[in-house]
This record gives sequence, structure tokens and C-alpha cells, in this order.
Amino acid sequence: MTDKAARRAKFEGVYEVIRDELIGHFAGEGMPEEAVEWYRNNLNYNVPGGKLNRGMSVVDTVEILKGRALDEDEYFKAAVLGWCIELLQAYFLVADDIMDSSITRRAQPCWYRLPSVGTVAINDSFMLEAAIYRLLKTHFRGQAYYADLLDLFHETTYQTEMGQLVDLITAPEDKVDLSKFSLARHHTIVIYKTAYYSFYLPVACAMLFSNIPSSDEHIYAHAKSILLPLGEYFQIQDDFLDYSATPEVLGKIGTDIVDNKCSWVVNTALLLTSEGGGKEYSAEEKREMRKVLDENYGRKEAGTEAKVKEVYERLGIRQTYEAYEEKVVHAIKAKIAEIVEIEGGLKREVFESFLGKIYRRSK
Amino acid sequence: MTDKAARRAKFEGVYEVIRDELIGHFAGEGMPEEAVEWYRNNLNYNVPGGKLNRGMSVVDTVEILKGRALDEDEYFKAAVLGWCIELLQAYFLVADDIMDSSITRRAQPCWYRLPSVGTVAINDSFMLEAAIYRLLKTHFRGQAYYADLLDLFHETTYQTEMGQLVDLITAPEDKVDLSKFSLARHHTIVIYKTAYYSFYLPVACAMLFSNIPSSDEHIYAHAKSILLPLGEYFQIQDDFLDYSATPEVLGKIGTDIVDNKCSWVVNTALLLTSEGGGKEYSAEEKREMRKVLDENYGRKEAGTEAKVKEVYERLGIRQTYEAYEEKVVHAIKAKIAEIVEIEGGLKREVFESFLGKIYRRSK
Ligand SMILES: [Mg+2]
Ligand SMILES: [Mg+2]
Ligand SMILES: [Mg+2]
Ligand SMILES: [Mg+2]
Ligand SMILES: [Mg+2]
Ligand SMILES: [Mg+2]
Repeated sequence: MTDKAARRAKFEGVYEVIRDELIGHFAGEGMPEEAVEWYRNNLNYNVPGGKLNRGMSVVDTVEILKGRALDEDEYFKAAVLGWCIELLQAYFLVADDIMDSSITRRAQPCWYRLPSVGTVAINDSFMLEAAIYRLLKTHFRGQAYYADLLDLFHETTYQTEMGQLVDLITAPEDKVDLSKFSLARHHTIVIYKTAYYSFYLPVACAMLFSNIPSSDEHIYAHAKSILLPLGEYFQIQDDFLDYSATPEVLGKIGTDIVDNKCSWVVNTALLLTSEGGGKEYSAEEKREMRKVLDENYGRKEAGTEAKVKEVYERLGIRQTYEAYEEKVVHAIKAKIAEIVEIEGGLKREVFESFLGKIYRRSK
Repeated sequence: MTDKAARRAKFEGVYEVIRDELIGHFAGEGMPEEAVEWYRNNLNYNVPGGKLNRGMSVVDTVEILKGRALDEDEYFKAAVLGWCIELLQAYFLVADDIMDSSITRRAQPCWYRLPSVGTVAINDSFMLEAAIYRLLKTHFRGQAYYADLLDLFHETTYQTEMGQLVDLITAPEDKVDLSKFSLARHHTIVIYKTAYYSFYLPVACAMLFSNIPSSDEHIYAHAKSILLPLGEYFQIQDDFLDYSATPEVLGKIGTDIVDNKCSWVVNTALLLTSEGGGKEYSAEEKREMRKVLDENYGRKEAGTEAKVKEVYERLGIRQTYEAYEEKVVHAIKAKIAEIVEIEGGLKREVFESFLGKIYRRSK
């Protein structure tokens, strides 16, 4: 087993414990066996099967902050926080798949698509969220930072839901209107829907767990000022790879164009074909390309996706992306360099480690 | 304006304040105007239009516990707690209507049924819940009982979702199976899905607000031991009125039989037609009545509802209900009498007031 696989297996071991703890409590409330079985299936189907990057990064960050390996109890508690983030993500994804009418998730049917489940999936998503607070109460009730931890999960949840709302009304699955799109709108969606819960939340959890007091607001603000741009960079990369990577490298087929996604790529194309952007094209050429985008983006008809991609190629989105990547990485590195490493405070390695996993990734 | 109407109007006035506070914060996060408008509509459509009994009972209970009228700030804060319960209810109802494929709620289309809304209603329900924690943080972060308040809302939310799950798998809208029903199952559903959030939560909020320490567990346990049976009684009454009250008195048409509801009435009928119950009927007669129930409960075909009601009449459910009511009210009164009234503790009037509003109500 590689080191990476061993780390994952250890983290997955904690899932078994908390799942049994949740089920034990649920059954202990006198719930009928049929409901216990249902809840167990809900947890097993929706929580552990992802990449687990968010959850595992809590443990990794705690180790870096403490500058040493964790003892058994520390590891377990940090992993519980990690699994709380995975539960939060499962809560969002189960519901998002219904709202997006998605068919599959993690190479299996979406939970709500199982004939025996259907819209009960909505209440199941609620229970995934409720499980977070049950776990936090069981394992962190006595800590001085308990209320901070609850505030952090609440605020992050709210932020993600704000981003989800803006995404849903900007890019409804069934109604294409590119006039609603813009890079500014993309920025709002990505920061709120993804960056807060995927990047800031794991590190902030690790910081609280490492007893960095929430009253040291500037330390949390500094972490946020690195992690939100990092999260945005990650998502822009995700959007770019959806269009640019071959399915063999990506491991899946990109569908953002067909799905009417408010992606960085289309928003960049919209900017480059607008009056102000893309100086190397005439007004006539830009109007033409914009027309192709309006008529072919988010359509299911054969050939439409290829026409959109043609415009992307013509506009040189690949080069635009590479320039963006170098610029944002430079800015993030500068913010990391500003960290003053003091005992019991932040460590640059936390952020360098995140950045190292992302920079120039190909999938 | 009657005293009751004036109390309601005052409570509703606080809604305007918290709505504007939530919207102001949301807009302040840089959300686009279209999203601000959406969130405002979500709040206005789903939160203030109900009976407001749960929310207003927080204020009433605080007044009784303090034994005096509240000053402006106390009133406002108690009302914020009340509106948090109304938000919690709105969160459940918006989602419940989707899961039940309901058409109308409070004499208007269900939120998800509006053509412009659809499944976005799921995320809207999430945001109604998130609003609770935003309000609690804004108004109660500095209180010693802040973490207790969060724990209370979390636990109650989880309990309600447990009850909802059991209800959904016991009485799916589209698949009738009375063998899953029983009075024990009904008890679990009602206590978890309704009693905790509708009866215990408002009083426990008022108790925390009145500085009854959560470490006085026996006081909270005593309140719970009265309020859960009271909540069950309330729901059994609701189930009974759905069948027994005329639409003129009830103000709506009962649909529990057609909707395959796991109601106290059908569960009582199932008990009375089972081997052990209903001594005045022969085994043959009981089998016959049970067959009528199995073949006609939860069906949309004309005449089926009337056949079920015939069995109810034959079994004398009305008398069974009256006997139940007298018995449970007697038991609740005994528990209320056990309260030892001390300074800064519980008051019997809290519970007498609840009971007075419920006992022998006709709608
Ligand atoms: Mg989706
Ligand atoms: Mg989506
Ligand atoms: Mg993507
Ligand atoms: Mg319903
Ligand atoms: Mg329901
Ligand atoms: Mg009813």
C-alpha cells in the first residue's frame, strides 16, 4: 500500500466508527429497524465514496500546525472534523443532484434516482447535515472552541447555500441565457458555492482544533485571504480541464457546455467577444462568435458543443488560462510569504501543501 | 382589534425586522439583486403566513416564567427565538410538500409548485434553516446559554427529521400497506415529527432565555415529560378532527384517509379489528372490517373514503377518542401538579395555558 493509500484507509477507518455511533444513537431513540436500515444505507451510499480531499486535509493541516504526528485520540478527533466536512458535502450533493436532475454521481446512480428512494432523498440530505451536529456535540461539547466550531459550520453552510442559489438562478438547467453570465457572477458563485466549504472550512477547523483562538481574527482572515483565491483557482482549473483535457486524462467526459454551466471558460469567451475585450478581433468577428455561443451553448443537439469549442479555440482560451494560472499562483505565493510564523500560529506549509496539490494538475 | 389580534400583530412586526436583517446581510455579502429578490420572496412566501402558535408561545412562556410583562428588548429577543421556530417549521414544510407531492399550503400553491421555483425550493428550504443560526448568532452570541440554544435547535431538528423518515417509509404517498401501521409506530412518528419541535422546543427556548440553567436537567426533563404527551394529544386530536369534524367547523376538508396518512384513527381501527382488540366483535366481523380498510384506505377512487368512515363509525372511534382524551388530560394534569414552583424555576401556568388552548378544541 502506498503512503497515500494508507492515509486514506486510516481515515476511512474512522468513518466506520462514526457511522456506527450515529446508527447506535438513532436506534437507541427507539426508531424501527426499517428506519435504522434506511439511515445506514443513506450514510454508506452518500458519505464515504468521494475523493475525501476535504476531510483528509483537516488531519493533514492539524499535523502541520502541530509540527508532529498526532496521537491516537488527536487523530480520531481531527478525523471526526474531517468527516463532518464530508457529511456537509454529502448533504449538498444529494440535494444538488435532485436540483440538477443528474443521473449519476461517483459512478453510481444518484441517491434520489434509486426507485426505492425518490424524494425521500430530501429528508435524507437533512439527516446528513443533522449528523454533523450530533458528532460535534458528542466529541467537542467540552472544548472552549465548541461554539466557534458551530458558528463556523453554520456560516459555511449558509455561504454555500447562497452560492448554490446564485448558481441555480444564473444557469438553470433548462433555460439558457448567457446575458446573465459574467466573470463577476462566476466569481460570486465559485467563492460561495465551493471555496468556503472546500478550502477555508477544513483549515479553519484545524486551526480551532489546534487552539488558535477565534479572537485572533487577523489570523483567520489571513488564512481566508489565501484559501478563497486558492479555491477559486481550483474551480477555474476544474472548469478549464472540463473543456481542455482529454477524457483519458480527466477520467470522465466534460459536460459543462452541454449542461449550461456558468463556467470560467464560457465567461472568459463572453468577455473576449464583448465590446471591451479581445482587441485582436473586429467588432463584426466578435458579434459573430457571440452569436455562435448564444445559439449553441447549453443545447443537447448534436454538433452544438463542437461549435462552442471552435469559438474557444479561436479565442485562444488555453493561453488566457495559462496566463491566469501564472498570475494567480504568483499572488497566492505572495500572500503565503506574508505569513509570520510564530509558535501556536499559522505555518506556510499548510498553504504550500494545498497549492502543491493543485498547481498545473492535469485531472 | 382583539387582544389576540394585537398580540399577533406585534409578533408579526418583529418578522419585518428580522427579514430585513437577513436580507441586509445577504445583500451585504455581495449577492446579485436577482438573488436578493429571490431570497426575500422565499422568506415572505414561506415564513409568516401560518398560525404562529409555536413562535408566539415562546413569548407567552417567557412572560409567564418572568411573571411580568417584558420590556422592549426582552420582547424582541423572545420574539426572535419564536421566529427561529417558525423558520424551522418553514424549512420542514417547504420540503415536506415536495416529498408529499402536495398542491396547496395555507390556501396558496406550495412554494415548489410555482413554475419559476420548482426544485430550487430544496435549496430555499436549506436557506430557511441557515437563517435560524444567522439570527441566533446575531442576537444571542454573547449569552451564557448560547451553546445550549444551538444544541437545542440541532437536537430538535434531528428528532423531527427522524420522525419524518419514519413517517415517509411507513406511509409512502403511493404505496398503501397497513401492515406497517400500528399505534406504536404512530407514537414514534408523532413524538419525533411533531411534539419535539412544536411543544418542547418553544418552552425549552423560553426556559433558556429565562436563565434556567441547562445543568438543571431534571427541570428540562419535567417540562419534556409534560410537553411530549401534550404534543401527542394535540396530534391525535388533529387526526381525530380530520375524520370527525365537519368542513364548516374544521375550516378545511379532511384528507387523511385518501392520503394514506398514518393517523391515530386508522391505527385505532386496526387495533380494534385485530385479534386482541375490540372484544364486542366476532373474529369474522373483525376480518371483514379489516378487509374493508385494506382495500379502501389511501385510495383515490370514489366511494373508498366513505367505506373507511363506515368502519370507523361501526367501531365507535368517537367514543374511543373521548375516553383517550379524558385519560391523557388527567395524566397531563397530574404531571403539571407535580411541579414545585420555586423562584427562577418552572410555573404550572405555562402548561395549563397550553392545555387550555387544546382541551376539547373543535378545529
Ligand atoms: Mg450538480
Ligand atoms: Mg448544481
Ligand atoms: Mg467541473
Ligand atoms: Mg405533508
Ligand atoms: Mg409528510
Ligand atoms: Mg392533520
